[in-house]
Amino acid sequence: MKKLLIHITMAFCGLMLLACANQEETEATVNTHAPKLLLTQNGADFIMAHQDNVLIEKSLGKLRTAFNTAVEKPLEFPQPLDAGGGYSHETHKANYQNALTAATLYLLESDTSALAYAKEILIGYAAMYPNLSTHPEGKTQAPGKLFWQILNEEVSLVYLIQAFDAINSALSENERATIITGLFEPMVSFIKDESASTFNKIHNHAMWGVAGVGMAGYVLDHPEWVDAALNGGDKSGNSGYFKQIDQLFSPDGYYSEGPYYQRYALMPLVILAQAIEANQPEIKVLEYKDGVILKTIETTVQLSACNGYFFPLNDAVKAKSIETPELGYALPLVFDHSENPDLWVEVMKQNGNVVLTDALVGLHKKKCEPFKRNTLYIKDGPKGESGALAILRSDPFCGGTTALLKFGTHGMGHGHFDQLGILWYGHGNEILADYGAARYHNIPQKFGGRYLPENDTWANQTIAHNTLVVDENNQYGGDDDLADQHHGDGIYFINSDSIKAAAAKNNTAYPGINLQRHVALVTLEGLGAVTIDITTANSEQSHQLDLPFHYKGDIVFRKPAVQMEANQLTVLGKENGYQHLWLRGASETTKLAQSTLVNGNSFYTISTTATQPFKVLWAQTGANDPEANLLHQEALIYRSKEKSQTWVSVLEPHGDYNTIHEKTSGAATQISGLTAEENNGVLTLKITTVSSQEFQLEFELSENQNFNNPHISISKV
Amino acid sequence: MKKLLIHITMAFCGLMLLACANQEETEATVNTHAPKLLLTQNGADFIMAHQDNVLIEKSLGKLRTAFNTAVEKPLEFPQPLDAGGGYSHETHKANYQNALTAATLYLLESDTSALAYAKEILIGYAAMYPNLSTHPEGKTQAPGKLFWQILNEEVSLVYLIQAFDAINSALSENERATIITGLFEPMVSFIKDESASTFNKIHNHAMWGVAGVGMAGYVLDHPEWVDAALNGGDKSGNSGYFKQIDQLFSPDGYYSEGPYYQRYALMPLVILAQAIEANQPEIKVLEYKDGVILKTIETTVQLSACNGYFFPLNDAVKAKSIETPELGYALPLVFDHSENPDLWVEVMKQNGNVVLTDALVGLHKKKCEPFKRNTLYIKDGPKGESGALAILRSDPFCGGTTALLKFGTHGMGHGHFDQLGILWYGHGNEILADYGAARYHNIPQKFGGRYLPENDTWANQTIAHNTLVVDENNQYGGDDDLADQHHGDGIYFINSDSIKAAAAKNNTAYPGINLQRHVALVTLEGLGAVTIDITTANSEQSHQLDLPFHYKGDIVFRKPAVQMEANQLTVLGKENGYQHLWLRGASETTKLAQSTLVNGNSFYTISTTATQPFKVLWAQTGANDPEANLLHQEALIYRSKEKSQTWVSVLEPHGDYNTIHEKTSGAATQISGLTAEENNGVLTLKITTVSSQEFQLEFELSENQNFNNPHISISKV
Repeated sequence: MKKLLIHITMAFCGLMLLACANQEETEATVNTHAPKLLLTQNGADFIMAHQDNVLIEKSLGKLRTAFNTAVEKPLEFPQPLDAGGGYSHETHKANYQNALTAATLYLLESDTSALAYAKEILIGYAAMYPNLSTHPEGKTQAPGKLFWQILNEEVSLVYLIQAFDAINSALSENERATIITGLFEPMVSFIKDESASTFNKIHNHAMWGVAGVGMAGYVLDHPEWVDAALNGGDKSGNSGYFKQIDQLFSPDGYYSEGPYYQRYALMPLVILAQAIEANQPEIKVLEYKDGVILKTIETTVQLSACNGYFFPLNDAVKAKSIETPELGYALPLVFDHSENPDLWVEVMKQNGNVVLTDALVGLHKKKCEPFKRNTLYIKDGPKGESGALAILRSDPFCGGTTALLKFGTHGMGHGHFDQLGILWYGHGNEILADYGAARYHNIPQKFGGRYLPENDTWANQTIAHNTLVVDENNQYGGDDDLADQHHGDGIYFINSDSIKAAAAKNNTAYPGINLQRHVALVTLEGLGAVTIDITTANSEQSHQLDLPFHYKGDIVFRKPAVQMEANQLTVLGKENGYQHLWLRGASETTKLAQSTLVNGNSFYTISTTATQPFKVLWAQTGANDPEANLLHQEALIYRSKEKSQTWVSVLEPHGDYNTIHEKTSGAATQISGLTAEENNGVLTLKITTVSSQEFQLEFELSENQNFNNPHISISKV
Repeated sequence: MKKLLIHITMAFCGLMLLACANQEETEATVNTHAPKLLLTQNGADFIMAHQDNVLIEKSLGKLRTAFNTAVEKPLEFPQPLDAGGGYSHETHKANYQNALTAATLYLLESDTSALAYAKEILIGYAAMYPNLSTHPEGKTQAPGKLFWQILNEEVSLVYLIQAFDAINSALSENERATIITGLFEPMVSFIKDESASTFNKIHNHAMWGVAGVGMAGYVLDHPEWVDAALNGGDKSGNSGYFKQIDQLFSPDGYYSEGPYYQRYALMPLVILAQAIEANQPEIKVLEYKDGVILKTIETTVQLSACNGYFFPLNDAVKAKSIETPELGYALPLVFDHSENPDLWVEVMKQNGNVVLTDALVGLHKKKCEPFKRNTLYIKDGPKGESGALAILRSDPFCGGTTALLKFGTHGMGHGHFDQLGILWYGHGNEILADYGAARYHNIPQKFGGRYLPENDTWANQTIAHNTLVVDENNQYGGDDDLADQHHGDGIYFINSDSIKAAAAKNNTAYPGINLQRHVALVTLEGLGAVTIDITTANSEQSHQLDLPFHYKGDIVFRKPAVQMEANQLTVLGKENGYQHLWLRGASETTKLAQSTLVNGNSFYTISTTATQPFKVLWAQTGANDPEANLLHQEALIYRSKEKSQTWVSVLEPHGDYNTIHEKTSGAATQISGLTAEENNGVLTLKITTVSSQEFQLEFELSENQNFNNPHISISKV
């Protein structure tokens, strides 16, 4: 899968077919029932005139296939009885999706069978909806009527109102009135008024409610619905769309729960933005909060590795990549408003799921340019004052390494206890990895596809991350609420040609212990682009300090040599994730450890020293896992017991492993020596290479440094 | 990697650029020094006229890049001192490769700098060779002069004589004489006469010797060299090229050591065949032994899964796919002589390493057609009487499942003790897998890249394969010589639209025990294409019988439910591979076990019953592995202790797991019941589905059945 995406990235630009048809567009006649939302007649005409554009061709093909599949079955409107996954739930979900599919095809192709089908669904619901009471399975605080959860009801409104909008001008007065009074008025009333407590929440689910109600307001000419959607049920601005944007997304476009949930939260955010822009351009929604909506879309894409997979922070399903359909609305919107739309043509191609809306108008004039992933400091929190993610990239494409340092907000119920954790990638492959969520998503046999118990006992625990663990405890004692009240803080960030670096501190995760992490991408002559990774812990008491690296690949060299356990494996610890680790072996105390991995076509060596001696533990997940829920993954853990300890690792990509031509070069690390000394708050690192070069690097470890100009020096001795 | 190859398979045909240039070819003027081997002036002209063909463009580009890289360094002819991997070894190897590269470019492009470079290498060796004695590191029985092994010397002749041939007509009389007397005459004499014992061996290494000497004979007009190459040093026919073909390749084109070594053995076989065809077409070498040379090439490709990776039988490096450069000569040859050359255009594209020879003439007239992988019975042994491999495929492309049953020869020193072992693939992904060789190929840190000790203690052991293990012993007591004297025998083979099946027996692997395995691909209404896998063991004494399945993917359902060990893992056994397995858990005795895996976008369930009850053991590799040489892989093992036991498994691919659109269907097995009964030598299998369908299948278990028409019946109850 990963390779496939890389392949696509390279191939797409070359393959692009750009239509060069006439650019004149027909001016729509004034018609109060003309489409008003994301796809208007103008957009439809453009799309049909440019069917040979590969993006349009693909999406149009999918629409046609989906419609042809839908009409094979008779339409049904079962009494709402089942919860998610059940018959009535899945049938109503298919109905609203099919209504939008058919209505869109009608708008595009004037296909009267599609019109009839969309109409039948809307009229069917108009007949049914007024008679529904709350859903029998709706035992939560927020039940729907068609669905067990109000969330699903809100999503259905987003689809159905768009379907109605697309066929509105083809309806008779009578049909129109039937649908409005039978379906949309009661549905909006149910969502906006009867379910006001949800509608006015600050939560990504409520975003769907405001999107649906706001769009219904535009289409049915109810400005008060729009007002409620944008400014909350009481129109005070303390809830509603703008307040949600304020609270849920940081000014840099980051969503606290992490990239996996970010792409989901993005969809209603974007749909309503596009509808507002079409109907009330004077609001300048895309300029709101310094353009945070478009920034959020761009940040979502930047939060993926160069193979397209999202960084698996917090509760993430690792299979999620930018191919995800939720980006189907977002990417065209950012394309439409970007100063450099050519870049987004490629991303839309990688996504492959663009929704056909007016945002695509102009596509025929755009070239395809390789998208660049950048070195970024992405501030977290509503005002950008709650820590950040720092992403350091040696290369904007897939040629180098990427390091990510996390010190933002916890991420609420989906957060992991991984302050100051890092991820590290080589050529788009995970090398130092995050387990993601412990979950077999959508696989019924595994706990219904929901989060497994091991999500709480392993995946979100501190030891499951590439960050320091004190006394085998979790950060914040494993308490989500406590963790949500805190975050790390940046010390510095540099993004220059010669060095890309970030440092952060956290003094709250473990009481009485000051933690820092510094990560720097530097190019050393003869060694190439290496990553320096520094972790410090300072305390007045002595603590057991464990620094884990969860590596991906096959270990081909280990120093010190450790004989792995032969006949018996025992568990490493009792709780906080340690109960899931088998201890494969442990070294004597050392001050230099090196491990070389092969992964894909490259080698990677982790060379580690510290100011105090430490042991190397070799571990593997799988203990205390009676149902075999955990994937078997390996880790090395550096362990020492000290009041103060500073670890320094040099992460070194090297060599070339060509299995097709059976040629290997540079398989061995170029680093032969590594020492670290701390004096007066300055860390001095010496690196010796096998060709007897010596480098000296200095990092100041003070918490208070010039954010843009910290004290780092690099010299060749 | 796997996905990438599949992608290529689908994309290549569409992308192909076929040149439609003038088809007239210039007739070469008669010139005794004109090129005589694989690439002549005629071929060179064709290639240069069709540079826009993607295959030619790619290979030409590689040649140019290789030449430009080579000339950046000064030419050196170091005194031969080092063994493989050392400086003198690698320099001489690069020299002979660069000589051929440069000479080929000269022939193609009349590039005089390339001519000068090739000439300098040949004249350099002509000056050096007469003064060389045997290599100082040549402590083996068969030393070279430039190289420590005669094998490398033979390979160098194959390259150098082709380089000479390509520039022969551009040499002065004096240069020509210098090279012939200084280099080729002494080299041929050394290989053919002074190293006669190797030259006349029946071994794939010696194939290089005869290829080099034979080609030198054609170019330098020494018919007696050709005679020695084709018929052995004493020209008796008891050794030499034809005898080697007789002995090394089965009539169906299988090489006993397995596909990994087959593609290596193929290269000199093909090169000499093409040279003979060009110089002595009257020999009709491609018709020899019923066309075995072309058959061997076709079989090599058929011995790969639909993702292009070779079946990893015996000591196989699993990274090897049809992209391997050794197929660069073979594929054009079979293309040139195939009755359906269009099929081979796609395979050449997947390979991507075609060598530019006369075999490509005509390429511009050929279409690209998807290559079909077939259901095959590939007989083993020089006369095809030493067992076989049966490959059963539900689909010629990548849409279905593939089952392979191995019961041919052992494979000499590279053989594994895996008689009646199976491999099973779904959509090109390994589901029931072979470990391949225990080796980090070309990674110096891991035992110099050579076979690891664990190749003998794990990888080639019976328990490491999907085949029955008796009393925790290896087949043939783990004795290669003994195993080489035996093989399995086919009982039947069917390849019809409704059923593809094979069965084989082996009564020699374990003294006193009769073993059979039957594998059948059948389509059952409502269940789809499933594989029935039957293993029987019969003995007069009671034995511990272990049937392992080495699966790939994540287990999402297990029946009976087994609580895995929580706090401690112990080793499963003491020797014969068992010492490398951790025991994760074991079930109570049962008569029905089911395990569902998710792998890629599909689910796979293994449902197993037996005539006697058995336990299910869950194991993982990694015990007694102090250097961490083994990859961590999982297996389930069915265990019972009986005189006679017959296991029946239904291997069922099902459902669809779409992670992009987050849709899952058919995640659960459709099989709810499975029973097996044996009466009067007939096995009756009953399959019940969750929708209460019932199927009854009968297999006769007699060793003597009508090979083409065995007793198998399938009915719906």
